[in-house]
Amino acid sequence: MKVIKFGGSSLASAAQLEKVFQIVKADKDRRFVVVSAPGKRHEDDTKVTDALIKYYKAYIAEKNVADIQNWIIDRYRGIIDDLSLGQGILERISKSIIDLASLPIEGNAFLYDTFLAAGEDNNAKLIAEYFKKNGLPARYIHPQEAGLFVTSEPGKARTLPSSYDKLEELRNCDEVLVIPGFFGVTTEGQICTFSRGGSDITGSIIAAGVKADLYENFTDVDGIFAAHPGVVKKPHSISELTYKEMRELAYAGFSVLHDEALIPAYRGKIPLVIKNTNNPDHPGTKIVLKHTGATIPVVGIAGDDDFVSINISKYLMNREVGFGRKVLQILEELNIRWEHIPTGIDDMSIVLRARELTPIKEQEIISQLTRHLEVDEVEIERDLSIIMIVGENMKSHIGVMAKAAEAFSKHHINLEMISQGSSEVSVMFVIKTEQEKAAVRALYDSFFNS
Amino acid sequence: MKVIKFGGSSLASAAQLEKVFQIVKADKDRRFVVVSAPGKRHEDDTKVTDALIKYYKAYIAEKNVADIQNWIIDRYRGIIDDLSLGQGILERISKSIIDLASLPIEGNAFLYDTFLAAGEDNNAKLIAEYFKKNGLPARYIHPQEAGLFVTSEPGKARTLPSSYDKLEELRNCDEVLVIPGFFGVTTEGQICTFSRGGSDITGSIIAAGVKADLYENFTDVDGIFAAHPGVVKKPHSISELTYKEMRELAYAGFSVLHDEALIPAYRGKIPLVIKNTNNPDHPGTKIVLKHTGATIPVVGIAGDDDFVSINISKYLMNREVGFGRKVLQILEELNIRWEHIPTGIDDMSIVLRARELTPIKEQEIISQLTRHLEVDEVEIERDLSIIMIVGENMKSHIGVMAKAAEAFSKHHINLEMISQGSSEVSVMFVIKTEQEKAAVRALYDSFFNS
Repeated sequence: MKVIKFGGSSLASAAQLEKVFQIVKADKDRRFVVVSAPGKRHEDDTKVTDALIKYYKAYIAEKNVADIQNWIIDRYRGIIDDLSLGQGILERISKSIIDLASLPIEGNAFLYDTFLAAGEDNNAKLIAEYFKKNGLPARYIHPQEAGLFVTSEPGKARTLPSSYDKLEELRNCDEVLVIPGFFGVTTEGQICTFSRGGSDITGSIIAAGVKADLYENFTDVDGIFAAHPGVVKKPHSISELTYKEMRELAYAGFSVLHDEALIPAYRGKIPLVIKNTNNPDHPGTKIVLKHTGATIPVVGIAGDDDFVSINISKYLMNREVGFGRKVLQILEELNIRWEHIPTGIDDMSIVLRARELTPIKEQEIISQLTRHLEVDEVEIERDLSIIMIVGENMKSHIGVMAKAAEAFSKHHINLEMISQGSSEVSVMFVIKTEQEKAAVRALYDSFFNS
Repeated sequence: MKVIKFGGSSLASAAQLEKVFQIVKADKDRRFVVVSAPGKRHEDDTKVTDALIKYYKAYIAEKNVADIQNWIIDRYRGIIDDLSLGQGILERISKSIIDLASLPIEGNAFLYDTFLAAGEDNNAKLIAEYFKKNGLPARYIHPQEAGLFVTSEPGKARTLPSSYDKLEELRNCDEVLVIPGFFGVTTEGQICTFSRGGSDITGSIIAAGVKADLYENFTDVDGIFAAHPGVVKKPHSISELTYKEMRELAYAGFSVLHDEALIPAYRGKIPLVIKNTNNPDHPGTKIVLKHTGATIPVVGIAGDDDFVSINISKYLMNREVGFGRKVLQILEELNIRWEHIPTGIDDMSIVLRARELTPIKEQEIISQLTRHLEVDEVEIERDLSIIMIVGENMKSHIGVMAKAAEAFSKHHINLEMISQGSSEVSVMFVIKTEQEKAAVRALYDSFFNS
């Protein structure tokens, strides 16, 4: 039993939908199809979701909404016509889009979410209709009927734990169920969306709920590459990643899947595969809990910029019980999220994303560290990048660090900071951003080309 | 103007005192002599300070104190006779020792400190007398007269900031001043000692107070070695260290000087030299604020055992604002001091000295992490050692890490954790204790023998 999810670009046109149909039909275990709203057909196209945002804004500003309604309906009409699905489904979708403009505005915390969710919801109806017309027993199912209940937090819904038992009952359905992604329903029956890009989350929740054997996430790339293709020429695609490795790579700039989306599948121990709708024969990248069989020590190399470091030194710092905690407390009170704390004996660095440090917060931190914690020196270091080498099997391979450090040294790259935790899933290096690309290339060469 | 301090073994006998006299006489800038109590003359000897502890215990238990009084007085008598200093000084010292047994016991928080301080105090009188008899204009000065005032914290006195202005006036004295180490006087006139081994602190305070050009600390070794002589055969002695480097080495097992003793000299920007009373021509190890001239990237390699690590992992840990702070808060509430926090993305390790983690505290930590912070996994890793490579000039030498990692790899030593802060004064490696000696030898070979 498999859950299969398609992203917006896989569903942007009739031609794409034909590929989707072939993929679903090809494996009778593909029983749950989670879909996004129609995405862009070409670079300059508008996503249906973005059109819905425009529609919402016009509606609450009490402007004329006819044009934008028509644009959206036409978008679906184009696909319906190309697939010869007929008038019934078009009328159903049209009504749904037009009816949005009769929802109450005042005191309706879920209005925005309801507008947005219409993109996925109507696409699911369309796709179910298309599957049925082509002889695949399929049925559109609304999250309310499916049992996907969420908290009442507009724009950032979280699944209610009770959902999982309800969802499990879907296993008994005979049809292929087509489920709109991106939203759930509150216990009061309101539409409430996950954070943007949230169709991945729906797929993950459904996979965990129906205890799927596999969660197939179809995108427009052949899986995950061992390094960014914009930096390394033709990097090889990773055949197998663990969830932990995926997290580390996603953290440092790999953005195939939104990592929060993976939690339900991770907790449900469901393996996941990332595949390409446009190249379905490519095995893609499988994401598993534990590596199967022997594998290489390093699976991928990631780099991300826009980091800064707050470097603090104080003579005899490490004798002070609570010093580190007090520093972190200052950051927390300013609602600043930190990333790493490489420490010496009398110095500590706090590495964080540059966006966390506004000029006002920066002044406040310096002032508090100097006045309350009486540090000897505090300095803000900018234009830093983080480079991560990632691989759970590093643990059993002595010499990974030597190989990496040698690569840096050979290319005259200075290591500003280093941190490797006991999990040994990754080693993190902080370097100057101007050397980031050279560093990723040097490491890729060292681990994959030699 | 120099402050010169002698440790107990340099002052244990007449023969040692003759060396001390020659050293002081050899340089007319040596104007402030800080002395310890007489130390051991041989392996099985008793230190005068330990005899004074015995004396104190007998006195407060209202036992007969005559024997122990006599032992202490005889100890000074032996030196006085050997140096032919005559009856006057012996009577002065005898009276001082005997008078201790007429101090009030009840409600006297400073009684123990007063007993202990008598070792240094009487030795200073003796040494001043000896210097004068040999034609060096010298004068014993009590900390009260000198102006060394401290907080009323028996056994852990801290200098009152006002002391420094008073001490500065000592610059105007014409004589060589002989000052007993280890204690100061409260504003109520009570004797109050620094923590044990505190003659180093007195020297450091006097040096800062009189704004000395140099603080000479005489011990019984030729300075500080680049690695522990018990691990590496005949390691070379370090000619110049910075205060920061000294701190890092002291942290990881080098114990020539108690590093807290250095604070006043460090803050006063006074350079320090560690020399050998028994080999005064050896240049020793100079400790400075900044390196003078070019120097090697790595000055020393230290290793210390008995560390443990608390390894925590939680999926999406790094998304939680305040997670790290909460972990440190748990430790702080249990009064546990931590050393390093190497982090991955979803895992953090807390490295601490094994003595900090009693079985009860360990249970409490695991329980709180599991219940309150809902971590996925927590594991205690034992038998760990920290290896540090230390050198402020690493910063300007690319390739130090590569050299170190290569040495580890060649000797099949797995790096459990790594941390390098932005100061780049040191790189810390956590390894299994069973590989500690091999690691120190490998690194020493790599940085000093090749």
